[in-house]
Amino acid sequence: MQTLLIVSHPDIIESGSQQYFLNSIKQHSNITIHHLEHLYPDGKIDVAKEQDLLKQHERIIFQFPFYWYSATPFIKKWQDEVLGEGFGYGTKRQPLAGKEFGLVMMIGVAEREYQAGGEELFSISELTKPFQAMANKLGMVYLRPLPVFQFFYMEEEEKMNNLIKYWQLLTMDKDISLATREKWLIEQLEQIVNPDEAFSPLTFAIERIQANRDKIDELKMVLDDMFLK
Amino acid sequence: MQTLLIVSHPDIIESGSQQYFLNSIKQHSNITIHHLEHLYPDGKIDVAKEQDLLKQHERIIFQFPFYWYSATPFIKKWQDEVLGEGFGYGTKRQPLAGKEFGLVMMIGVAEREYQAGGEELFSISELTKPFQAMANKLGMVYLRPLPVFQFFYMEEEEKMNNLIKYWQLLTMDKDISLATREKWLIEQLEQIVNPDEAFSPLTFAIERIQANRDKIDELKMVLDDMFLK
Repeated sequence: MQTLLIVSHPDIIESGSQQYFLNSIKQHSNITIHHLEHLYPDGKIDVAKEQDLLKQHERIIFQFPFYWYSATPFIKKWQDEVLGEGFGYGTKRQPLAGKEFGLVMMIGVAEREYQAGGEELFSISELTKPFQAMANKLGMVYLRPLPVFQFFYMEEEEKMNNLIKYWQLLTMDKDISLATREKWLIEQLEQIVNPDEAFSPLTFAIERIQANRDKIDELKMVLDDMFLK
Repeated sequence: MQTLLIVSHPDIIESGSQQYFLNSIKQHSNITIHHLEHLYPDGKIDVAKEQDLLKQHERIIFQFPFYWYSATPFIKKWQDEVLGEGFGYGTKRQPLAGKEFGLVMMIGVAEREYQAGGEELFSISELTKPFQAMANKLGMVYLRPLPVFQFFYMEEEEKMNNLIKYWQLLTMDKDISLATREKWLIEQLEQIVNPDEAFSPLTFAIERIQANRDKIDELKMVLDDMFLK
């Protein structure tokens, strides 16, 4: 699966959270990082090129700071121009149908404020309805989003937890079965194993997960046999 | 009451609906028409000037085409910059608190599609939550919006009905009592009466409305007297 990560931020160099997340995926062969302000410094979007890029990816993610409960002006401009008539609507062929769509949002306010009675009044699910409606219009599958609340107040462990959720949103199959998550974890571990080392704790971890999986599959077969006979 | 009408459209000259509504209020002394693309052709917003303008008005309206279930990129840019830290948030003084906020949206799809089971999945109330949350954050009163659905398919009478709703959103007090609506109607009629004509149907209409109002007030006084004695 190829993922197109469309990033927009008015001042990305100054954003510690953006840098933290983006630096962690620079080497990933299945992710195309697509930073709008960097690619189009004059603001003029190459619509045909963007549409081609969308067709070449199975998962599309918008990553942006959640200012005023929405995406950046550049993402809105991208939506209005790239998803224009004949591509985004007003056509029966729906070129993006069946692909997946997700959001990564950096949020300055605490999670507890996003509810009735909280300072921000509405939940993230309520505030992102325009994006859910967009996915619906395009025939895309809307993924569970990743809202990152108050990154700068996080302890290191919490940051790491968010990083793993980030990698999962970008690269893990939507199917949430244990087998899928194990397969994904092994792939991630294999990417960071040092091939020069004869033995490492990571190799050991991979072997253990695979052994457990084999055992589970074996037990399943026994169970199936019992019921089929 | 002074109203600031913040208009944004990527191609306003070509938009028949925008022209229809804007032309009808050109002479209105209580409305400041503020067309962002016209005022800032290079996209650079004079933040201090915009903030001053907001302070001078009691009602703020955004008018835009409802592309991808949201406002234009320029309105988002305006929000992010003008309603920045120290003015829009991160300050206790809330310079816009108590003022009113409303939306005028030109919408290409039929109203019936904006619901569960409809093509657009969500209602306008659901899709405009980011603006409701903004009004909440600023301490502003969120007004009943004016979504104009499929202007070009409208009969002349329907267009006129929408025009009246438009004028009401821009100039009528929020209080929806009959007395308020009568007062507003008389003001509107007086504006279009030709002073050179000794008698016109409009003058007659104004007199009738006022006479009815006097009668109602009289009856109210009688009723109050009955209960007080």
